[in-house]
Amino acid sequence: MSHGNLLYAQSGGVTAVINATASAVIHTARSHRIKVLAARNGILGALREDLIDTSHETAAAIRALAHTPGGAFGSCRYKLKAPEVDRAPYERLIAVFRAHDIRWFLYNGGNDSADTALKLSAIATEFGYPLSCIGVPKTVDNDLVVTDCCPGFASAAKYTAVSVREAALDVAAMADTSTKVFIYEAMGRHAGWLAAAAGMAGHGPDEAPHLILFPERAFDEADFLARVQATVARVGWCLVVASEGVRGPDGRFLAEAGTVDAFGHAQLGGVAPHLAQVVKDQLGFKVHWTVPDYLQRSARHLASATDLKHALAVGRAAVQYALAGRNAVMPVIRRIRDVPYHWKIVPAPLADLANHEKKLPEDFIRDDGHGISAVARRYFAPLLRGQAPPPYRRDGIPAYVTLKNRPLAKTLPAWPG
Amino acid sequence: MSHGNLLYAQSGGVTAVINATASAVIHTARSHRIKVLAARNGILGALREDLIDTSHETAAAIRALAHTPGGAFGSCRYKLKAPEVDRAPYERLIAVFRAHDIRWFLYNGGNDSADTALKLSAIATEFGYPLSCIGVPKTVDNDLVVTDCCPGFASAAKYTAVSVREAALDVAAMADTSTKVFIYEAMGRHAGWLAAAAGMAGHGPDEAPHLILFPERAFDEADFLARVQATVARVGWCLVVASEGVRGPDGRFLAEAGTVDAFGHAQLGGVAPHLAQVVKDQLGFKVHWTVPDYLQRSARHLASATDLKHALAVGRAAVQYALAGRNAVMPVIRRIRDVPYHWKIVPAPLADLANHEKKLPEDFIRDDGHGISAVARRYFAPLLRGQAPPPYRRDGIPAYVTLKNRPLAKTLPAWPG
Repeated sequence: MSHGNLLYAQSGGVTAVINATASAVIHTARSHRIKVLAARNGILGALREDLIDTSHETAAAIRALAHTPGGAFGSCRYKLKAPEVDRAPYERLIAVFRAHDIRWFLYNGGNDSADTALKLSAIATEFGYPLSCIGVPKTVDNDLVVTDCCPGFASAAKYTAVSVREAALDVAAMADTSTKVFIYEAMGRHAGWLAAAAGMAGHGPDEAPHLILFPERAFDEADFLARVQATVARVGWCLVVASEGVRGPDGRFLAEAGTVDAFGHAQLGGVAPHLAQVVKDQLGFKVHWTVPDYLQRSARHLASATDLKHALAVGRAAVQYALAGRNAVMPVIRRIRDVPYHWKIVPAPLADLANHEKKLPEDFIRDDGHGISAVARRYFAPLLRGQAPPPYRRDGIPAYVTLKNRPLAKTLPAWPG
Repeated sequence: MSHGNLLYAQSGGVTAVINATASAVIHTARSHRIKVLAARNGILGALREDLIDTSHETAAAIRALAHTPGGAFGSCRYKLKAPEVDRAPYERLIAVFRAHDIRWFLYNGGNDSADTALKLSAIATEFGYPLSCIGVPKTVDNDLVVTDCCPGFASAAKYTAVSVREAALDVAAMADTSTKVFIYEAMGRHAGWLAAAAGMAGHGPDEAPHLILFPERAFDEADFLARVQATVARVGWCLVVASEGVRGPDGRFLAEAGTVDAFGHAQLGGVAPHLAQVVKDQLGFKVHWTVPDYLQRSARHLASATDLKHALAVGRAAVQYALAGRNAVMPVIRRIRDVPYHWKIVPAPLADLANHEKKLPEDFIRDDGHGISAVARRYFAPLLRGQAPPPYRRDGIPAYVTLKNRPLAKTLPAWPG
């Protein structure tokens, strides 16, 4: 333990490739003879001194991590308060890091995690504790600024576009006597990145998706119904992609538009069932709908090869930055060229990323507000490109790995949080 | 046109591999120099004399059909009345067949289609019109008797098991601070075949799915909530697979259990959101849910290689039976052995299949009623085995084919139906 240990933690919603980043982190650290500890359930594991010693995992298990979705060490939705408000957690983290000789902290997450890593880095400096804090990008929401895209997004985007294409072929075959309208609900509460990716499923106004409802555009029910009706009249059927973040003119989420159960309780969301009801009631068409929910972000079986390369590259770079003594930075993806696609990993200061949110660019949305532009297609195409299927077992299920996750002995008093 | 033409039609809900059957039919017929016509939108196309001449499709397009989901010629949900009730449609069909020299009719569908093909065959005999009527099996519901399984089912089953496995890895990572219960809704209004297939995602009581709700077992809300609570206490989270066909003790579908929108209208189904609401209200856990709907039956990207082989084999055999002069039969799949998996195609009289429905065997359900048995695993494992991915374009989307579907000139008066 002379040169110290590296701590890796996963944060926020997991993705199809966040474990690929973990795999690259551990592999790269091992090649430098650095021990990797992992915090169980993100920063909470660090606070609780609930640490995993990854040395017990075989090289084969670490390789298999690269094709296993979910978060192998557990993630968390937990935001530390600013140190001005509550210094105790930061001091606790330094105490835990000191107790386990942690000199490098890699936090794999989104905006909040970048912010936490940045603040922790400042506190460590204040305490005179030698620590490199490196943010590692991850989010299906694709909402980190500075980076061209976020590992995890491209696979969810590929899932979305492929699923919409497949559902479209189904509905087209059924429309004569059965389902005429199909509604697909895409994740994205604040920005329409995944809804936009659905646009890759088809070209031109007669190919599905015929209508994309973006959170960037206020929903107008009359206009929506008119467009659905016109599409059914012209094409014979209509496929709608709705972002879960679509809001009405009053600014309220459509998913919370007053649907109640039999007892009058507000019902758990779902833009798709809501819109399906509206179409059925107002236009009388037979409607089917889907809410893929977590399936879209965990579909490792359909991961984008580009996404996997990005996820591995940011993991490798994060360790290299850490060992080179960099601090408060994140390896981000810079696009050099669309065609042929070229990209590289560069370091970006966490201060440039923390607490910012990248919106879907206005010029990604087609002029009519219900489809994507050529600019968007140029952005998405290389991200969705290439397949990276996992190996499968003989019973037809992917050979995903479950790690041993052996805990390290605790040495400190319990954390009350 | 000396030896006559073959008419192929698709019926009912389409699948990931019904077009593979179509591809095999056309390829095999072409090798015998037989022209294949296709009815647009199933039997309705035959009634309307809306026929497609598949001779215009290139060999490459017919090969690509084998990896394209949906129904390439359109399908229909339309059941002919019995000839005793209404003979006119049957007489019309014979007139259309006569006008286009159709000597072989291949109807690709489920129970109803087998029944239609059988009745049509009887009428043709009565009219002295030489016609071979061959049923070709297809249904994600897996509810045809006689055959060991139905092409289309195994791919939907693989989709179900893989999706549940992936969602489970996601939920396991989030459970500490976020989602503790996840509910997956599987198709199957009358039998729990797809819900049962989800059981392949894990082994033992602590692996997901922790609870399967079969339509074969009456739903007991108190028992369900107790099991969810016990699973969360023991494992930390709980993944539930619910068949859309689950019914309460009163025999009503749970999906219709009184959910209304803000205007008091009955809301479009969804067992999963209903159960999610119950869990949230009664147990207070954070819940996520998914309704994959058509995605599960159109996911050609995740097709089972076994299923694809079956789908191609029944298509080839159907043409061979037709050309050999067989009538009122269906090529079905007979399982010879589980391990190593051996199967063959044999002809079965349509009379043995028509209007029967195969239920999920009782011994597929685990004694506690909420999981699958070893018998079920032996049945499912070879069906889910093997991958058969489609080719992909450079923008990351599968290269699915759209046929020209050139109509044949009509020669008869219009059909009023």
